[in-house]
Amino acid sequence: MSTAQPSRNEGAAAGPRAWEPGYDIPARLGDPVAAIATPALIVDLDAFERNLDRMRSRAADLGVALRAHAKMHKSADVARLQTTRGGAVGICCQKVSEADALMRAGITDVLVSNQVVGEARVARLVRLAERGRVAVCADHPDQVAAFSRAVLERRAATGSSGLTLDVLVEMDCGSGRCGTGSVAESVALARAIDASPGLRFAGLQSYHGRAQHISEPAERRAALAAALALTAATRDAIRAEGLACDRVTGAGTGSFEIEGAAGVHTEIQAGSYAFMDADYARVRTDDGSAPGGFEHALFVLATVVSVPARGRAVCDAGLKAVAADSGLPLVHGRSGITATGLSDEHCNLSDPDAQLTLGAQIHLVPGHCDPTCNLHDWYVGVRHGRVECLWPITARGKVF
Amino acid sequence: MSTAQPSRNEGAAAGPRAWEPGYDIPARLGDPVAAIATPALIVDLDAFERNLDRMRSRAADLGVALRAHAKMHKSADVARLQTTRGGAVGICCQKVSEADALMRAGITDVLVSNQVVGEARVARLVRLAERGRVAVCADHPDQVAAFSRAVLERRAATGSSGLTLDVLVEMDCGSGRCGTGSVAESVALARAIDASPGLRFAGLQSYHGRAQHISEPAERRAALAAALALTAATRDAIRAEGLACDRVTGAGTGSFEIEGAAGVHTEIQAGSYAFMDADYARVRTDDGSAPGGFEHALFVLATVVSVPARGRAVCDAGLKAVAADSGLPLVHGRSGITATGLSDEHCNLSDPDAQLTLGAQIHLVPGHCDPTCNLHDWYVGVRHGRVECLWPITARGKVF
Repeated sequence: MSTAQPSRNEGAAAGPRAWEPGYDIPARLGDPVAAIATPALIVDLDAFERNLDRMRSRAADLGVALRAHAKMHKSADVARLQTTRGGAVGICCQKVSEADALMRAGITDVLVSNQVVGEARVARLVRLAERGRVAVCADHPDQVAAFSRAVLERRAATGSSGLTLDVLVEMDCGSGRCGTGSVAESVALARAIDASPGLRFAGLQSYHGRAQHISEPAERRAALAAALALTAATRDAIRAEGLACDRVTGAGTGSFEIEGAAGVHTEIQAGSYAFMDADYARVRTDDGSAPGGFEHALFVLATVVSVPARGRAVCDAGLKAVAADSGLPLVHGRSGITATGLSDEHCNLSDPDAQLTLGAQIHLVPGHCDPTCNLHDWYVGVRHGRVECLWPITARGKVF
Repeated sequence: MSTAQPSRNEGAAAGPRAWEPGYDIPARLGDPVAAIATPALIVDLDAFERNLDRMRSRAADLGVALRAHAKMHKSADVARLQTTRGGAVGICCQKVSEADALMRAGITDVLVSNQVVGEARVARLVRLAERGRVAVCADHPDQVAAFSRAVLERRAATGSSGLTLDVLVEMDCGSGRCGTGSVAESVALARAIDASPGLRFAGLQSYHGRAQHISEPAERRAALAAALALTAATRDAIRAEGLACDRVTGAGTGSFEIEGAAGVHTEIQAGSYAFMDADYARVRTDDGSAPGGFEHALFVLATVVSVPARGRAVCDAGLKAVAADSGLPLVHGRSGITATGLSDEHCNLSDPDAQLTLGAQIHLVPGHCDPTCNLHDWYVGVRHGRVECLWPITARGKVF
């Protein structure tokens, strides 16, 4: 059979091999790419490091802090590289269980950039604040009351009178998802936080998720101009109440250049910049390039498992290996080959020049990196054609 | 704060509680539904058992064997119930690592209803055939040669001269994915399998994945009529070569009534019948009912985390908790409330009558059960409002 895999006696490392029964780690250190069990999530380490360096430099130039969004990758290893080489001040998480998993793996500064509701979930959040610097968002006074109650309960249970939770007001700046709906609501909520025992008012979250993905620069800029004006007005109205509002956090890979330059945000929450995906690569800046000059560093490595007819091929990465919510994956580095459909375990490919043979490996660029990463257990870090590292996806499936 | 959760001192069971730091199991046995950490995958055990009973009875009436497709649920517990109470003769898997995980958990009869390509992956498959009854599909002579070579290598390595792999010809009956493209190809492949040392020709796979989801009965019947005619012709041509072709396997939840009644298939591969999803519920039979009378037994339990404006709410189940490839989830048992959008960690809801308050739990019916189940680590089995069982999703993420 035509296959790109090396013989079973090759390979640089000791121990069980990818593909051994019961062994579901996709590779060993030192393995050539051809030996990686597919479908697998591959990180091109050179491209990833260049993306970290680019973002560190851009954030410094813009004069904003980078708080890397770990919901994208869910990996303590990636988060550590973002906060060391990548210059991030800390990370964002979207879920308490995600923050918990990453803090257990050594991450110490987390903004839960989301609404946290439910007595038990709030209690868990408060216990994270004992282990590091933790902040959370709120968009409703009932939540503020719940946070305060939980901190006081925990203080009483542990005798730790200093325990305090940082709480930010999340405003809806145009995405139409969570967030306060008016300047007056935001001001009232900031005052409520400030007045609540156990809490510290820590600033404003203004995140325009939808605008990240508007591909045309003029249209994206228009959406963000309105959001930025509302954000500045909200911040100023909070300050007019005598409250410090030194932290305005938000923005992402598709928009941080605009928000970073506007002088309203102090902190940007970009996540996808580290890996990039097909959807963000469609977002254009004024000169027609992708935002920030970021490169594709994340791939789903797949194997051709059927060539049923000339011009058609099928590979082994389906909906359980690559997320389809933002479109089909792109085939990387193989001109003329395109994905035509995804089912549970297969991706259909059009291959008009019949380049693909049974067993050939291909690299797919996911349409959307966040839900793709969440499907896998391991990142396989590759450099110069060899596996250099295996990073567990620490918080995979941590959805609570 | 308004919340449906019980106080932290309630609950019927001992040990750590859902929501405790570091404890990511969504519930304890005996917990009320209100105590389940969300988003969580809920199985309504009564509905699930009725679905098992219905399919057992329908397969018996149709005179076909049921080989339940475990790619849908990936759980050894569900598979065991399908092969005991549910009357299935065995299971199907789509991946070798999936079959491996389920066989390690005690399942003994597996058809890998897919193409298996790559020397190491084939070697792993052959080792599964030492542990139980294993069959696999092929659509290319190179694969047949690879299977034969791997069996002979394993025989030589272990001295077990009796090791044999059952191989079926997979024909393309209209889905346009994998499979042989003509009767002549199918016949040639069947002969190649029969002639290969270490292999046994075990029949024909004819699976029309696309037809499963054609909602209109007349259109679905037309697609299947052509497929069934081709399948019968292929089977007859193989038999005319003097080869036994006693097993014709295929069909699924959306189509098994038609294939089962046609007398060509001997075995049906239905999977979704056990849980059902929103997409299969849109498939109609002639009397306008859902296929087989199956009920929704699978839900994503979610919590409302924001009510930003009257008429709108946001819950905590996003793309990482419910798959979006077959449309938005349905809101179950709450008239007038609909899902309007999914992002990574949120589902936006329209709630014109403002029924939802912060902390309210809702049950979502996933658009597509297979990739939804693969996102979670646990099924929470519920009966009479209490958690009766927790089933690990044994083969979650086993994509190799």
